[in-house]
Amino acid sequence: MPAPALIFASNSDDPVAWGAALRALMPELEVRVWPETGRVEDVVAALVWRHPDGALNAFPNLKLVVNLGAGVDPIFADPHLPRNIPIVRLVDPELTRGMTEYVVLHVLALHRRLPELAEAQRAARWHYIHPADTRRTRVGLMGLGNLGGHAADMLARIGFQVSGWSRTPKQVAGVDCFHGRDQLPAFLKDCDIVVCLLPLTAATENLIDAGVFAHMRDGTAFVNAGRGRVVVDDALLAALDSGRVRHAVLDVFRDEPLPADHRYWRHPRVTMTPHNATAGYPETAAPQIVDNIRRVLAGQAPVNVVDRAAGY
Amino acid sequence: MPAPALIFASNSDDPVAWGAALRALMPELEVRVWPETGRVEDVVAALVWRHPDGALNAFPNLKLVVNLGAGVDPIFADPHLPRNIPIVRLVDPELTRGMTEYVVLHVLALHRRLPELAEAQRAARWHYIHPADTRRTRVGLMGLGNLGGHAADMLARIGFQVSGWSRTPKQVAGVDCFHGRDQLPAFLKDCDIVVCLLPLTAATENLIDAGVFAHMRDGTAFVNAGRGRVVVDDALLAALDSGRVRHAVLDVFRDEPLPADHRYWRHPRVTMTPHNATAGYPETAAPQIVDNIRRVLAGQAPVNVVDRAAGY
Repeated sequence: MPAPALIFASNSDDPVAWGAALRALMPELEVRVWPETGRVEDVVAALVWRHPDGALNAFPNLKLVVNLGAGVDPIFADPHLPRNIPIVRLVDPELTRGMTEYVVLHVLALHRRLPELAEAQRAARWHYIHPADTRRTRVGLMGLGNLGGHAADMLARIGFQVSGWSRTPKQVAGVDCFHGRDQLPAFLKDCDIVVCLLPLTAATENLIDAGVFAHMRDGTAFVNAGRGRVVVDDALLAALDSGRVRHAVLDVFRDEPLPADHRYWRHPRVTMTPHNATAGYPETAAPQIVDNIRRVLAGQAPVNVVDRAAGY
Repeated sequence: MPAPALIFASNSDDPVAWGAALRALMPELEVRVWPETGRVEDVVAALVWRHPDGALNAFPNLKLVVNLGAGVDPIFADPHLPRNIPIVRLVDPELTRGMTEYVVLHVLALHRRLPELAEAQRAARWHYIHPADTRRTRVGLMGLGNLGGHAADMLARIGFQVSGWSRTPKQVAGVDCFHGRDQLPAFLKDCDIVVCLLPLTAATENLIDAGVFAHMRDGTAFVNAGRGRVVVDDALLAALDSGRVRHAVLDVFRDEPLPADHRYWRHPRVTMTPHNATAGYPETAAPQIVDNIRRVLAGQAPVNVVDRAAGY
């Protein structure tokens, strides 16, 4: 039997680093970089980020598709995506840790009113703001999967009250959990800071609209580190202009890079980051990928499989 | 015997809130607000922040002076400070937690290059910066007392490598500890971000001078949440201008409020906060104060006594 091969297809990630990390754990694996497929029959796994449409149909023995990122929505953009091959999420402890870092940073920045303090500094004005009481400040996480659960835990350790909202019921220690559209108003009404980590699916596209902002308290702060298309931009801009949302921190956008004429760039109540909330690391992600390759080669089901109907 | 009394002398703190928190735990305590001393013989304890010079000499039965803040340097500014009465630090778990929050916030902001990202946003420029590897980033804390130890623990939980430097030898789990002037260069040379939490004493005044900045790596980030007079401002400005220090976050200053013409205000590599890194809370600080009052009334030594020779 020829050595099993993996096809790597990403313009944003380093094939040398990924290849080295995978082969360190599975020396018999051949790593080939798209479009150099070699003998297509050898390819059993694909590691992809925004792969070319139809590329995955070239491999008759493909048994596994691994998404090179937390959000799998780019995979479903391929209209020719093979139907029967399991797609798995990248579950990388460093990618998770990076997102927690981002959430903690921007929740604390909003809690400590850094945008107002920056404005005072620009005016050379000593503007004392007493630190708000963290124990009486509630952060609400939309999305309670691997990323949301980890961030919730660190926010609770720091001292915040934490709520969470998810599509399906979840239980997370120390987190007041809500689920489903019906419970969204009850979740939102007590939050001082709302953080969106939702995946982009048919159910979440444009979910955060004027109606959702209407359920927030006046002066709520908002962070979006999920996907841009989950938020209706005009609704967020209206909520910022009315003061319903006092400040928004945005890492993700409907179109990326965001066009230079978009209102977000110069809005005084918007802080933007260039979709860099977190990133995967080959050496910490490789064990899960190799484990899944070994599973499918042994005829077992891989772990962290995406539910195609739910879209995540 | 008349009820024991406490004299409260601070223009920055709320005497009603402090009185209520103390009397909730010690209903027999009378709380009097300076200058309404009442019968001076009743006063056994003083709770002060920047009290008037000589004020503490009015009370013949004074047995305890509690400083309403983490740094006790304002108390020693009184040339008539009674010599034989123990001075104790406020050890308030919420004040400690607040400082950790500040340190975590600004270390993450520097780690994630928020100043550069803000500049890119002002130019409507999509400027992708890959998140630096936290596991390979070292934060150095100058000062490893109650505040530094707590902050070090949270930084390690978040994923940073952590070093600490203190006057006397300390051991903190998960922290590479250095002490004394001789070990300062070895401590500094491996740090990516240096955080000063040192108290102001005769030994720390102007400690962070050109020589100290010379021992840092090029591009080190610096946070001062200790005391302004620990840093030689001209040396820091020179280090910022040369790039030795890539960015400074300053909460404390030689003179506060900082005069509007000071270079720090408009320096592009300086982020300022108005000495609001943390604050004490009456309800969480009161137990330690009441415990100390009971101790001195029973003839016992109080806890958390300031070492007058060391100045902290």
